[in-house]
Amino acid sequence: MSEFQPRDPGYARRVRDSFERQKIMGLLGASLARVEPGVVAIELPFREDLTQQHGYFHAGIVGTIADSAGGYAGYTLMPEGSSVLSVEYHMHLLAPADGTRLIATGSVLRSGRTLTVCTLEVAIEKDGRSSRCAFGTQTLICLVDRPDGPKPA
Amino acid sequence: MSEFQPRDPGYARRVRDSFERQKIMGLLGASLARVEPGVVAIELPFREDLTQQHGYFHAGIVGTIADSAGGYAGYTLMPEGSSVLSVEYHMHLLAPADGTRLIATGSVLRSGRTLTVCTLEVAIEKDGRSSRCAFGTQTLICLVDRPDGPKPA
Amino acid sequence: MSEFQPRDPGYARRVRDSFERQKIMGLLGASLARVEPGVVAIELPFREDLTQQHGYFHAGIVGTIADSAGGYAGYTLMPEGSSVLSVEYHMHLLAPADGTRLIATGSVLRSGRTLTVCTLEVAIEKDGRSSRCAFGTQTLICLVDRPDGPKPA
Amino acid sequence: MSEFQPRDPGYARRVRDSFERQKIMGLLGASLARVEPGVVAIELPFREDLTQQHGYFHAGIVGTIADSAGGYAGYTLMPEGSSVLSVEYHMHLLAPADGTRLIATGSVLRSGRTLTVCTLEVAIEKDGRSSRCAFGTQTLICLVDRPDGPKPA
Repeated sequence: MSEFQPRDPGYARRVRDSFERQKIMGLLGASLARVEPGVVAIELPFREDLTQQHGYFHAGIVGTIADSAGGYAGYTLMPEGSSVLSVEYHMHLLAPADGTRLIATGSVLRSGRTLTVCTLEVAIEKDGRSSRCAFGTQTLICLVDRPDGPKPA
Repeated sequence: MSEFQPRDPGYARRVRDSFERQKIMGLLGASLARVEPGVVAIELPFREDLTQQHGYFHAGIVGTIADSAGGYAGYTLMPEGSSVLSVEYHMHLLAPADGTRLIATGSVLRSGRTLTVCTLEVAIEKDGRSSRCAFGTQTLICLVDRPDGPKPA
Repeated sequence: MSEFQPRDPGYARRVRDSFERQKIMGLLGASLARVEPGVVAIELPFREDLTQQHGYFHAGIVGTIADSAGGYAGYTLMPEGSSVLSVEYHMHLLAPADGTRLIATGSVLRSGRTLTVCTLEVAIEKDGRSSRCAFGTQTLICLVDRPDGPKPA
Repeated sequence: MSEFQPRDPGYARRVRDSFERQKIMGLLGASLARVEPGVVAIELPFREDLTQQHGYFHAGIVGTIADSAGGYAGYTLMPEGSSVLSVEYHMHLLAPADGTRLIATGSVLRSGRTLTVCTLEVAIEKDGRSSRCAFGTQTLICLVDRPDGPKPA
């Protein structure tokens, strides 16, 4: 059970709708694996066009799904009608992201009215085993007067 | 003029070859804009499939080209036969990446035998104007006994 | 000349008064070396009781004066009646802080209504030469409804 | 039980000796609260001369004991005859450090031959309750050819 109580009972729908609007997730092939109050996970199967020079997942792609996982973890606890932006994120690459699937989990560490801080953990699966390949932190800001979705034309 | 003297006169070829091996750069549409001793810039034209929920470049994509720009800035100063990995990178998102082209510039701040530290600056172009949208730092490690390129099968 | 225009013409007095209230600065022996719109520097002469295990300035003390320098750099641009808090700070230790005096300079990179981002540069002086020993970044929050100074008893 | 096996059975003595050499710990009044393989905690009672402008522990002092806690957590796993340096550390200040005692705990996340990554957690005690006031991460480097202790004169 989560230690957090979402203010908006429709938080999961709100997160899933916003995730759909992140076109980059479709390009990469990422999907939501878990949406709970204060915790969101995103998974990403290996593809050769996601790699760096050694043939592993690129560190920036590890960071991309981690940043979204943390952003949506924070967003589960934000009010209806708000949107979320990353203020900063920081990734430690602990081991080569060498495997068949990445799973990034964002977890809220501190939830405030304006700022939220998350931890970002990334696991890589290979030969049926999962191991941590990256860890980081992130600061988010809640925009209360800015609905999620594209700006009006 | 750069303050750094590359040990390998073939540094630019080495960087360009490695960049070609980063398959993710092709998927995103990124290209090398500048390769000098201690400084590398990568540019990325806007595409809708690179966006987050508001229709701007996703923060993770900003970080992806910044991480590669810094990695290759460090790599210009590393010896022939080595390869480079990111140990950690940290991005501050200063303004929405709302525009037609991103340019990420990695600059070496400290070049050591084992570790290199870079600054990462990202500008966004819109309506003929360029402005800073992100800033960060990065630590790289030089692997002297690990040639660049895919692991043997 | 600074690129920033302070909103409060009494910014320097406000910074100096707040610095006086940071009792830790007195314990360490740190003093303000520069107060300009968006830029503040703090200097700290060497003392043996500020050292780590090799006899150099401790990395945390390097971070302490850097954090205050950045905090006050941001504070120069904040309105009268506000106070400033660090949200996060990140230090890269580029070289041993081996010398007779540290100078930490905080410079505003982005000044917003709520959040400010600074760079933190630290130089060490030894044998009449100054060299960079640390570099970092910082996020600050402006508390508009919280006057600077101790909480009421 | 720890998941880590120290290579040097005398790790605790080595950590305690090095901590004694960190003169800054004496100035602040900090002491070792826990030394286990991969985990070290440092505690620091409140004193008015450790404060920032609102009368709380200064963020830099929170970072100072966290940096040492992480450094010594990593050092427990390093070989005899080595020494440890911080490459970078990053602190999120989650809540004001308002209380009577700080406890910083460094925990090894990844232990490598050259580089170690730690998490840094800081709790503040007030009115008999303990709560998290800061969280961060850190990268350490093991210097195998550099004994701990002051450089020769």
